[in-house]
Amino acid sequence: MNAPMWTGSYIAVDWGTTNRRAWRVDCGQATDEFEDDCGITAVAAGAFPAKVSEIRTRLGDLPLVMAGMIGSNRGWVEAPYISCPAGPEALAAALMEVPGERAWIIPGLSFADGKRADVMRGEETQLFGAVAAGLCPPDALVCHPGTHNKWASLEGGRVIRFRTVMTGELFNLLRQGSILKGWLDRPAEPGAAFRRGVEQGLEGRALTADLFSVRAGVLLGLAETDEAASFVSGLLIGADVRTGLEEFGRGEVVVMGRPELTSLYEAALGVAGTTSSIVDGETALLAGIKSIVEQRS
Amino acid sequence: MNAPMWTGSYIAVDWGTTNRRAWRVDCGQATDEFEDDCGITAVAAGAFPAKVSEIRTRLGDLPLVMAGMIGSNRGWVEAPYISCPAGPEALAAALMEVPGERAWIIPGLSFADGKRADVMRGEETQLFGAVAAGLCPPDALVCHPGTHNKWASLEGGRVIRFRTVMTGELFNLLRQGSILKGWLDRPAEPGAAFRRGVEQGLEGRALTADLFSVRAGVLLGLAETDEAASFVSGLLIGADVRTGLEEFGRGEVVVMGRPELTSLYEAALGVAGTTSSIVDGETALLAGIKSIVEQRS
Repeated sequence: MNAPMWTGSYIAVDWGTTNRRAWRVDCGQATDEFEDDCGITAVAAGAFPAKVSEIRTRLGDLPLVMAGMIGSNRGWVEAPYISCPAGPEALAAALMEVPGERAWIIPGLSFADGKRADVMRGEETQLFGAVAAGLCPPDALVCHPGTHNKWASLEGGRVIRFRTVMTGELFNLLRQGSILKGWLDRPAEPGAAFRRGVEQGLEGRALTADLFSVRAGVLLGLAETDEAASFVSGLLIGADVRTGLEEFGRGEVVVMGRPELTSLYEAALGVAGTTSSIVDGETALLAGIKSIVEQRS
Repeated sequence: MNAPMWTGSYIAVDWGTTNRRAWRVDCGQATDEFEDDCGITAVAAGAFPAKVSEIRTRLGDLPLVMAGMIGSNRGWVEAPYISCPAGPEALAAALMEVPGERAWIIPGLSFADGKRADVMRGEETQLFGAVAAGLCPPDALVCHPGTHNKWASLEGGRVIRFRTVMTGELFNLLRQGSILKGWLDRPAEPGAAFRRGVEQGLEGRALTADLFSVRAGVLLGLAETDEAASFVSGLLIGADVRTGLEEFGRGEVVVMGRPELTSLYEAALGVAGTTSSIVDGETALLAGIKSIVEQRS
């Protein structure tokens, strides 16, 4: 497991549930990339080698280092979770080789205390990458929005504990099948309606009630449907931010991820009176994979 | 509008979004009934007269008095909401006749203050019916679980204000399409797992995070999937009860509705240290429609 993998070019892959992205890396720099919707749930059992060949056809016949759900029990090869607290060296040491495939999978992290359990896959690579690249201090509270937002507490460059809030998934469930269906299709924007939602989410203890009130307000002619997406997004993100700040304390927050989400969380943190800085998730991921490759080379 | 409707037998109908129930009432007693899944969303525009004929074919060629979503903007004829505070006499006075059909629709109630809006259709008939029948005191906090749980504050037999918590709908969304899909199909039961969920829901301010923790617990081998339905039900109902008790104050709660739901709320209220009594929703509905018929006869 601790033998050097290679030196030189490689392909970095972020293989999630519904999408995958891959970058060709030469001399530490991404030189080519592609993205498609071939997430792990779109791959039949036994079909991963063929799907990996597609990547090499596109980007070159190179070793692969992969992060994300590809290492889950529904992925290609399961890479067991590393328990927190955990640092980047533990991740590199537990890298899971796919035998005979010149492919390695980065494990995820887990956290459990007497009451709660939590897991992540993919964000850990971004967290350690951001620290390695100097984009995030080694002691920080990081907020990583996505389908499942992760609040992670870093100390000395290690993830001490973290908590997942399924904000993005809940928004999608509401958009696709709830009484708010049809009102949540336009993109949320960090304007006045979003900020009203955030304020209510931050103060409220009644998210499930506040969501119904959105529908009632429209039925009674007190609210407009074209503001619903931004308001509901604000409501959910406000509740999410309240959870993160209550659990991990206030102070500057590093918001990491895709720009369309980090800008909403930055706005919500501003409403909460908290300063934030933004780290691009793609940059952090590539830095994280590069750091692991360097540790193992 | 205030002309007498009739005296004698009639058909009482509870016509909801996904189901309808109808009872033939002779001399104030239900003598026959039927139920099917022909909710308002299953009826094409213009097809309500034919669907009403089915009811009369089954139960007799009698006048109909209907409560529920049949009076919504997606129903047969819209019966505008009555603003709270409102008593049973306001409901009877605003009964909406469907011209030429020997059919009347009971309006719903609305509530709005500067911040929130709320609506109900169907529960108001049960609330006033329970008071009229002596099943519920005229001053009471009522909890009416369903797809959308209603907390209603009654004073002097009038609904002063109310709040909807979309607990049932959220459970269904999670069951049908979330990361917990496949784990929530068995009926929730008020045992140990349910009570643990209630305790967490009562104390927690992080429902959206606690839900993810259910999945993580199973992935890490710390929890069993066969307890997930009861635990998640407890979590949602616990958060619901916290909302209701915080907003309307503590004291005895009258829980009204279908037995499989009222028993879960009764258990959750017990965990919260609150006494409750149960009123059967069907009995309350029939009493409510009877009371309206008597006021208008």
